Amino acid sequence: MSKSIFYHAGCPVCVSAEHDIVNLIGSENVELVHLGEDRSRITEAEKAGVQSVPALYTPNGHVLHINFGASMADVKG
Amino acid sequence: MSKSIFYHAGCPVCVSAEHDIVNLIGSENVELVHLGEDRSRITEAEKAGVQSVPALYTPNGHVLHINFGASMADVKG
Repeated sequence: MSKSIFYHAGCPVCVSAEHDIVNLIGSENVELVHLGEDRSRITEAEKAGVQSVPALYTPNGHVLHINFGASMADVKG
Repeated sequence: MSKSIFYHAGCPVCVSAEHDIVNLIGSENVELVHLGEDRSRITEAEKAGVQSVPALYTPNGHVLHINFGASMADVKG
């Protein structure tokens, strides 16, 4: 199975959701991307359809926005 | 692993998210509950913390609200 990508920004909501997603689908099946620390991935996330974090980009190209931590505007600062 | 519970109401956003979640964690690991058809489960969902659908209640007791289909007020009608 292709990996999913979990985009987050280190916020408490993000960290909690990250733990839940890793528990559910396994750490080997998801790449964790901290957009606050790896700002070069922001454009990629936006192109994928990420509007807020935390969000999970699935192998079939869908974006699951999970709860709400911060908007992409907040992430970009 | 205990099962997660995916609460939904049959809306397009719900159906899309359901497919994604089943693909990601496996149908054997998630119970699908249609709150529009099984209204006796609405109270349980609210007690679990579900505020909108679709939502995934994880084995460790967290609720992941995934995208946004309808509020629980809408589901209750």
